[in-house]
Amino acid sequence: VERPRHQGMAKNTSMRWRLPLVCLLWEVAMIVLFGVFVRFGAEADAHWEEEKQEMNLTSDMENDFYFRYPSFQDVHVMIFVGFGFLMTFLKRYGFGAVGFNFLLAAFGIQWALLMQGWFHSFKDGKILIGVENLINADFCVGSVCIAFGAILGKTSPIQLLVMTLLQVTLFSVNEYILLNLLHVKDAGGSMTIHTFGAYFGLTVTRILYRPNLEQSKDKQGSVYHSDLFAMIGTLYLWMYWPSFNSAISDHGDAQHRSAINTYCSLAACVLTTMAFSSMLQKKGKLDMVHIQNATLAGGVAVGTSAEMMLTPYGSLIVGSISGIVSTVGYVYFTPFLESRLHIQDTCGIHNLHAMPGLIGGIVGAITAAAATEDVYGKEGFIKAFDFTGAYQARTPSIQGGFQAAGIVVSLLMAFAGGAIVGGILKLPIWGDAAAENCFEDGVYWEVPEDEESDVYHMHNPEKPASP
Amino acid sequence: VERPRHQGMAKNTSMRWRLPLVCLLWEVAMIVLFGVFVRFGAEADAHWEEEKQEMNLTSDMENDFYFRYPSFQDVHVMIFVGFGFLMTFLKRYGFGAVGFNFLLAAFGIQWALLMQGWFHSFKDGKILIGVENLINADFCVGSVCIAFGAILGKTSPIQLLVMTLLQVTLFSVNEYILLNLLHVKDAGGSMTIHTFGAYFGLTVTRILYRPNLEQSKDKQGSVYHSDLFAMIGTLYLWMYWPSFNSAISDHGDAQHRSAINTYCSLAACVLTTMAFSSMLQKKGKLDMVHIQNATLAGGVAVGTSAEMMLTPYGSLIVGSISGIVSTVGYVYFTPFLESRLHIQDTCGIHNLHAMPGLIGGIVGAITAAAATEDVYGKEGFIKAFDFTGAYQARTPSIQGGFQAAGIVVSLLMAFAGGAIVGGILKLPIWGDAAAENCFEDGVYWEVPEDEESDVYHMHNPEKPASP
Amino acid sequence: VERPRHQGMAKNTSMRWRLPLVCLLWEVAMIVLFGVFVRFGAEADAHWEEEKQEMNLTSDMENDFYFRYPSFQDVHVMIFVGFGFLMTFLKRYGFGAVGFNFLLAAFGIQWALLMQGWFHSFKDGKILIGVENLINADFCVGSVCIAFGAILGKTSPIQLLVMTLLQVTLFSVNEYILLNLLHVKDAGGSMTIHTFGAYFGLTVTRILYRPNLEQSKDKQGSVYHSDLFAMIGTLYLWMYWPSFNSAISDHGDAQHRSAINTYCSLAACVLTTMAFSSMLQKKGKLDMVHIQNATLAGGVAVGTSAEMMLTPYGSLIVGSISGIVSTVGYVYFTPFLESRLHIQDTCGIHNLHAMPGLIGGIVGAITAAAATEDVYGKEGFIKAFDFTGAYQARTPSIQGGFQAAGIVVSLLMAFAGGAIVGGILKLPIWGDAAAENCFEDGVYWEVPEDEESDVYHMHNPEKPASP
Repeated sequence: VERPRHQGMAKNTSMRWRLPLVCLLWEVAMIVLFGVFVRFGAEADAHWEEEKQEMNLTSDMENDFYFRYPSFQDVHVMIFVGFGFLMTFLKRYGFGAVGFNFLLAAFGIQWALLMQGWFHSFKDGKILIGVENLINADFCVGSVCIAFGAILGKTSPIQLLVMTLLQVTLFSVNEYILLNLLHVKDAGGSMTIHTFGAYFGLTVTRILYRPNLEQSKDKQGSVYHSDLFAMIGTLYLWMYWPSFNSAISDHGDAQHRSAINTYCSLAACVLTTMAFSSMLQKKGKLDMVHIQNATLAGGVAVGTSAEMMLTPYGSLIVGSISGIVSTVGYVYFTPFLESRLHIQDTCGIHNLHAMPGLIGGIVGAITAAAATEDVYGKEGFIKAFDFTGAYQARTPSIQGGFQAAGIVVSLLMAFAGGAIVGGILKLPIWGDAAAENCFEDGVYWEVPEDEESDVYHMHNPEKPASP
Repeated sequence: VERPRHQGMAKNTSMRWRLPLVCLLWEVAMIVLFGVFVRFGAEADAHWEEEKQEMNLTSDMENDFYFRYPSFQDVHVMIFVGFGFLMTFLKRYGFGAVGFNFLLAAFGIQWALLMQGWFHSFKDGKILIGVENLINADFCVGSVCIAFGAILGKTSPIQLLVMTLLQVTLFSVNEYILLNLLHVKDAGGSMTIHTFGAYFGLTVTRILYRPNLEQSKDKQGSVYHSDLFAMIGTLYLWMYWPSFNSAISDHGDAQHRSAINTYCSLAACVLTTMAFSSMLQKKGKLDMVHIQNATLAGGVAVGTSAEMMLTPYGSLIVGSISGIVSTVGYVYFTPFLESRLHIQDTCGIHNLHAMPGLIGGIVGAITAAAATEDVYGKEGFIKAFDFTGAYQARTPSIQGGFQAAGIVVSLLMAFAGGAIVGGILKLPIWGDAAAENCFEDGVYWEVPEDEESDVYHMHNPEKPASP
Repeated sequence: VERPRHQGMAKNTSMRWRLPLVCLLWEVAMIVLFGVFVRFGAEADAHWEEEKQEMNLTSDMENDFYFRYPSFQDVHVMIFVGFGFLMTFLKRYGFGAVGFNFLLAAFGIQWALLMQGWFHSFKDGKILIGVENLINADFCVGSVCIAFGAILGKTSPIQLLVMTLLQVTLFSVNEYILLNLLHVKDAGGSMTIHTFGAYFGLTVTRILYRPNLEQSKDKQGSVYHSDLFAMIGTLYLWMYWPSFNSAISDHGDAQHRSAINTYCSLAACVLTTMAFSSMLQKKGKLDMVHIQNATLAGGVAVGTSAEMMLTPYGSLIVGSISGIVSTVGYVYFTPFLESRLHIQDTCGIHNLHAMPGLIGGIVGAITAAAATEDVYGKEGFIKAFDFTGAYQARTPSIQGGFQAAGIVVSLLMAFAGGAIVGGILKLPIWGDAAAENCFEDGVYWEVPEDEESDVYHMHNPEKPASP
């Protein structure tokens, strides 16, 4: 896996023509495709006045906008501020963390509206969109933000855009297989978003393995203030996760229940994370890396089951376990993955998304398999699992089996897709930086020449070589 | 009040076994208690499909989730980002501010769900929870965050957890006395949250008085960036306070009115705070401590009366006064409390929560006593004060008297509870730091060894002694 | 335009008596005027119980609070955190950016409630307010925050308060002319908020031209961390802009549609901004100034048309164009405006608000002129443009003409008003700082004497002269 082209300073990282070309061509393509395909759904169209009368709706409140818009905005904050700032922990990669996350997410949501639209909202040759489509597009891009965490600081913005394009495509296919073909429930995306996104990203970073990455070791840590910026991301992800897991659940009790389960799971997760963070350090001091990340595992781990009758104490159990698994992962697995498996996982997405995502899929399968009419009520049971039409005959245990199959499909799609996309990203045309310039904003950003840089240079007497 | 054990460097502040033990034992206890007691309320349970039919509800919109969830999320942000970042103003205690606030709040909400559940949502042996319980749990923990402000930087995380456990318990008892026995109105918690939380915290910090605290004087100030981080907390508290005060008010006009009154009060408070901040400084320069804190007093001071017919101009008056009182408090009272009464109040909660909380209780009592059927309408009057059943015969002036009694009860509970809890926290087993190591993250956190620290060390040539 | 009074250090910038006096007098005036005029609207008044029965409303959900409160809170965040933090990019003006924005907005919303109330919510001698009034007050103040961007760092807080007072007044008059006399649609304020606010601010800064501003050139740039703080502002503006443009649209499909159009426009805008930011730099590196600002132009540019049937692809086109125009503006127009026209525009509001605002007005006029009953449906058409009563006979093309007239009126009001207000602010009584002390928090704020300042002083060996 030697990459000799990384050993010189001669790498051309200039984005001057490549990045504008990709962005502009892409935006033109989006405009054309939106022009051909995308229209307002009935509830966002001015014809809704007539629609309301036909459907005998007496109140504007019945518009889906009012059921989902507050949750949508919370999810939106998680994608742009949550993921963006979570990744600012690196001392010299804050612009890249927030800025590239902004770029790839804005790029990805447009493509996701199309891809998911063709699969799920296609009617008479048009994609009809509403607030639920916006949420799903954000969700889809969330899986790209997760994968970005693995390769943070090591790729060019063009690589990120290429990855986004391909990952959104694969995400939509995988989502279609799970939700439509397997008829799996996964409202909070433990499988579709977290398991898929994380193993996809880990496969990509494995393929892009950089043997000389220790050359930028000095830039892989945090500084005091960058850790505080990262906590902004952490807290917004943590606080709004109940909205994430409930955003596309059925109206009424299902949204309500999802929020409660997620709230409980996350609260428990904070306690076990703090416990193990302290326990696993020689001096018993807390480690910000764990607090910033492992506290969120509880949200991932109830992604599938939150809308089911998991119960509050079930959520506490799941949250507790996932906090422990995630923290142990940061201490023991991440170094192992890097040294033995050559998986360089900048943000530790294996601990925050991959393992908790698997837990989430398994908990979802068990919770579904254990469902009874007694617990859900006769109508609630049918509604919760959508056992209607072709699925009328499904039993909970069969549903549990399909849920488990959903995990396997997501994993296979992630590994296969990640390998292909990783191979494409390895082509020497995308302008990625040399190993010694990784984790350094100066490569792709105008960085203010100021006292801060000088402070920085005190410790790195050699000016960082900008190619 | 000499504490000789504070004079050496030999204090054992290692959390390695104590913190994990407390967290894990506690989480196990939570799981058991939740397993025995906590279930979904009707509106979050899958049986709601049937419930809806029985209750003749025609729309999922009637689920309480849609009345309160947006406000809940705003409150959630106030507790975790608002309080967390407000306390990051200290130059070297940002991790502790955000991180310990995160820990104690996540710990506290679980216990609050149980305690408040037993008092208010207990039915047939089960606590039935919904979104209103989540809000109330956040509220309850808010009072702990307030008390945390007084002892910020001077206690170990275990002390914080012990305090949280006991304060949540006392809060719930006090809340039960006020709301159920005295039948007092306090939707925004001027009495239950602010008055109780602040005087509780002040009593605790009095008992934990550290005579040698000037040894860490150099760390008690802010730096330029930490003041900006703190403003994130300030603004989120300020912006979302209308949601805080309206979150658990009656559906409809009461929630609407609470938000308007709070909005007006807070706007006025900013102006009087700025005025007095400038006036009380020799050179007329504004002080960030005032802007970060006293601007919020207007939200505290309408906590009880916001849902009443306080009127917008009444809110302006209350907000104006509370901004003045709070700013004057920072300039004159805080130094007095410390030097004369040995009350070391790190964040000045006496000015932000205690005095404005008292104002809020008094304004609430007056507003209630002044209520008339003319102003509220016949039905609105009964609904606003819940003058039904056993309270059918209550008159406004009697209600005003009970409101006043609520202030006194809250104060007594705070002083007595604070004294007991302070005494417990004084036991030499909790791992608090020596006076010279207060306000220093390095005691309980892995702090990045980086340029920032070195900048810091320039001014503190002696490396901070980590025990 | 020589301003000799700026050439000495002897300028009196002390706010000690002037600022308190203005704030307190003003707040007293507000209390009196609110006392005389402002009351709760029907939906926030306790009489609503009876109102509901009269209007045959069966659910509390019909209260406007539930249609608009979540959007209101998003708008509130945009005004205080969005604008406040967006302007913290300057290395030594973070307190002023966040703090003065806080002051002027809190001051302005009270006056806006009155001014807009007299024009739009006046009934039987009283202004009746509800959540929509709060949103409109925030909107009005948004135009002041925009103008503040042009003069950031160069004015005293008193000048800002005077400007706020006068600008809110003029805004309300202009808004009345547009909405009531011309019957123009402008829910997201491309004309009333952005075009008016920006050209007003640009005129003011032209009048206040400082020929010696290069004396504080060293303070006009950003540092690494200040750019990250500014990104907090950017992202909150970007994420919540769909709420901004939909906050006061008609219930139902119109709010839904506005959010979708704005979401699409903003996503496209990010891509074209990144493309041109990279393309216009010699080394192809991205510039944080563009990412912080031009990415938002897409929200401004659909402000008028978002609630119309602009369609998602139309939004992509508008967003793409505005990102390009705005980025090109930062690179070429801003230096030109400063050197040739003596318009010193600190934040580049010409690029972010003025030009995109004009685009927004024009797009709105075209979209209105192109409206057909076929596209909107018979009832939707009338509802969308409010073609009822006196406006029953309006055709789309006539409406388009009036929309265009709205742009012209907004521009004229901005130029005339800005000239007058600029003239008033030029009086030598407001305590603004000398040119060499611009962009320096130390003039009006107590700045912590800490390591950060020392770092700063390393590069500015002369201590900044505080007058």
